[in-house]
Amino acid sequence: MKKHPSRLHFIKDIPKPQSFGETTVLLYDRRLLQVVPGFKKWSRGFSATMPLAAGEKLKDLREFPAHCERLLKIVHGLNTRRLTIIAVGGGSVGDFAGFVASVFRRGVRLVHIPTTWLAAIDSAHGGKTALNVHGGKNQIGTFYPAAEIFLVDRILAAQPPERARDAAGELAKIALIDGGLWVKRLERSLKVEPAQLLMRSLRDAIAAQYRVVAKDPEERRGVRQVLNLGHTLGHVLEAALGLEHGKAVAQGTFFALDWSLERGELSEREYQRANRLLRGVVGLECLNMNAAYRRRRPSLALARRLLVLDKKRASDKSLTFVFLKGVGRPCRRAVLVDEILREARRQNWIG
Amino acid sequence: MKKHPSRLHFIKDIPKPQSFGETTVLLYDRRLLQVVPGFKKWSRGFSATMPLAAGEKLKDLREFPAHCERLLKIVHGLNTRRLTIIAVGGGSVGDFAGFVASVFRRGVRLVHIPTTWLAAIDSAHGGKTALNVHGGKNQIGTFYPAAEIFLVDRILAAQPPERARDAAGELAKIALIDGGLWVKRLERSLKVEPAQLLMRSLRDAIAAQYRVVAKDPEERRGVRQVLNLGHTLGHVLEAALGLEHGKAVAQGTFFALDWSLERGELSEREYQRANRLLRGVVGLECLNMNAAYRRRRPSLALARRLLVLDKKRASDKSLTFVFLKGVGRPCRRAVLVDEILREARRQNWIG
Repeated sequence: MKKHPSRLHFIKDIPKPQSFGETTVLLYDRRLLQVVPGFKKWSRGFSATMPLAAGEKLKDLREFPAHCERLLKIVHGLNTRRLTIIAVGGGSVGDFAGFVASVFRRGVRLVHIPTTWLAAIDSAHGGKTALNVHGGKNQIGTFYPAAEIFLVDRILAAQPPERARDAAGELAKIALIDGGLWVKRLERSLKVEPAQLLMRSLRDAIAAQYRVVAKDPEERRGVRQVLNLGHTLGHVLEAALGLEHGKAVAQGTFFALDWSLERGELSEREYQRANRLLRGVVGLECLNMNAAYRRRRPSLALARRLLVLDKKRASDKSLTFVFLKGVGRPCRRAVLVDEILREARRQNWIG
Repeated sequence: MKKHPSRLHFIKDIPKPQSFGETTVLLYDRRLLQVVPGFKKWSRGFSATMPLAAGEKLKDLREFPAHCERLLKIVHGLNTRRLTIIAVGGGSVGDFAGFVASVFRRGVRLVHIPTTWLAAIDSAHGGKTALNVHGGKNQIGTFYPAAEIFLVDRILAAQPPERARDAAGELAKIALIDGGLWVKRLERSLKVEPAQLLMRSLRDAIAAQYRVVAKDPEERRGVRQVLNLGHTLGHVLEAALGLEHGKAVAQGTFFALDWSLERGELSEREYQRANRLLRGVVGLECLNMNAAYRRRRPSLALARRLLVLDKKRASDKSLTFVFLKGVGRPCRRAVLVDEILREARRQNWIG
């Protein structure tokens, strides 16, 4: 595990294949062949390529042995003493290829080129890699920051605009945690389309995230847990309702704000500011009072089972929950699972 | 990856289960139930246990998903925020459990209790973990030094004495590389049984190995490659003839000494000293002139194929080979695969 964060490059166009190193293996989401003009030609410049079907199945540990056997065949005959794996794709490709790079021959050089807003703002950074075991998501993984991360305008702009909604929840979350000058600028431009907001704030939001990760790269001291703002209930909604990650986190953040107000952590004035920022960025209202939501909301028993699976569990019965004391002032508290459930019920999130 | 080497404990008896941490999972070679008196009772003191069938099959990547699913079930309901995996076994158990500890929930605390001489003197140290992919040994792995390593007299003494022969090759290798005061003591007691030699030299041999590993914990600078003395031809003999690892390394070291003399790296006098030390520790003669060996020796073509698989390959056609300039003075040189084959043929190692 390298302690230094990855080198970041914010650039307009994709760099030349030759610039990535001596022996280069491109692991990429095969849909990019259709989406990014010139991708096929570009991919031919690498020592070897391994197209992937993106999605959760890619992260299935049961598939991993076959992927490794395929990779071993692909690199056969190459000089692999100085191997670089270049991962081009969204969250699942990054999680998978990052894990592969961290364990293939005890670790090879890794470069990330995220192709989705969610990967660009969140999952490509911080070095977390992950595979799913039957019975548990992200149970296998490593901390393995990429040596370099390229944020490429042409690739990010190639996404359908609606994908920006998924990432807006993470943007709002990091803005609420950080509260720096860039957040004030963000608050002044909330009328703009999410894709535009993301393009404008990407650099600042990533820098804010690195400030947190640098304090606790391997999550040993808990500091990094503030990045889980909105994720406790978010994960429950994601699993129970099949909500997209970014949208689930946005809803989980509404929950965290309301609870912070209720507990007196957050003043009424700061609550209004945070709530306006969150709504403006994600372009969504809080769902808990919505009649359609109330018909689908998870039961208390299901919510309890999902909470107990949470990796941020402090003990059998308690969790570390991230509250907000103000924009830019997150705080962690150990709370009982029962307290979370009681509050979620009070706010009408669970039935 | 932690830069500091593991904490070592040289002790008479097995420590109490409670001393290993809050939540403890014991991964152990199930044969130990028969071999070490009181093992079953001791194992009951852990939060959970996972008996393993030791051997290369344990390291098969195709079996890994099922092992992870089993582990996930085993730890279900435990507080796993502070999980310690205690690996008790020989090389395969250590390689496997070390890898599991390095990737389970992105890394949990690892303790090694090696139960074979080979693991005690070599594989438990240095942090290398490994699994085998179909088509390649140790192709998947991590650098993940154990937090603590216990060298337990009662466990090591429980081995059949003939197992000491496997480890003697590694002892001789590290003695030849290090050449410290302890090596002079070793040279004065070469009449002693291998198990006794190992028990007496274990602490010094491990310390010598740590001096090398500390200079280059992740094998980035090549320094650590001196530990591969005897391994280049050793791996060929191990794979081609099914020789035990320690015995193959011993033979590979005879080859390296003869080649060092031939190339003028080693004086005749130092050659005699090194050769005497090697023969004395491993209790074996050099096999290359032996008629029985010559009937079984690998062909040139097979040796070439096996050499090209060597991970220490510097390029397509050359390898880093470890020569000896004297006891305690290893040196690394890039040599062509063809040069190795020519010399191996000259010395009658290959046909």
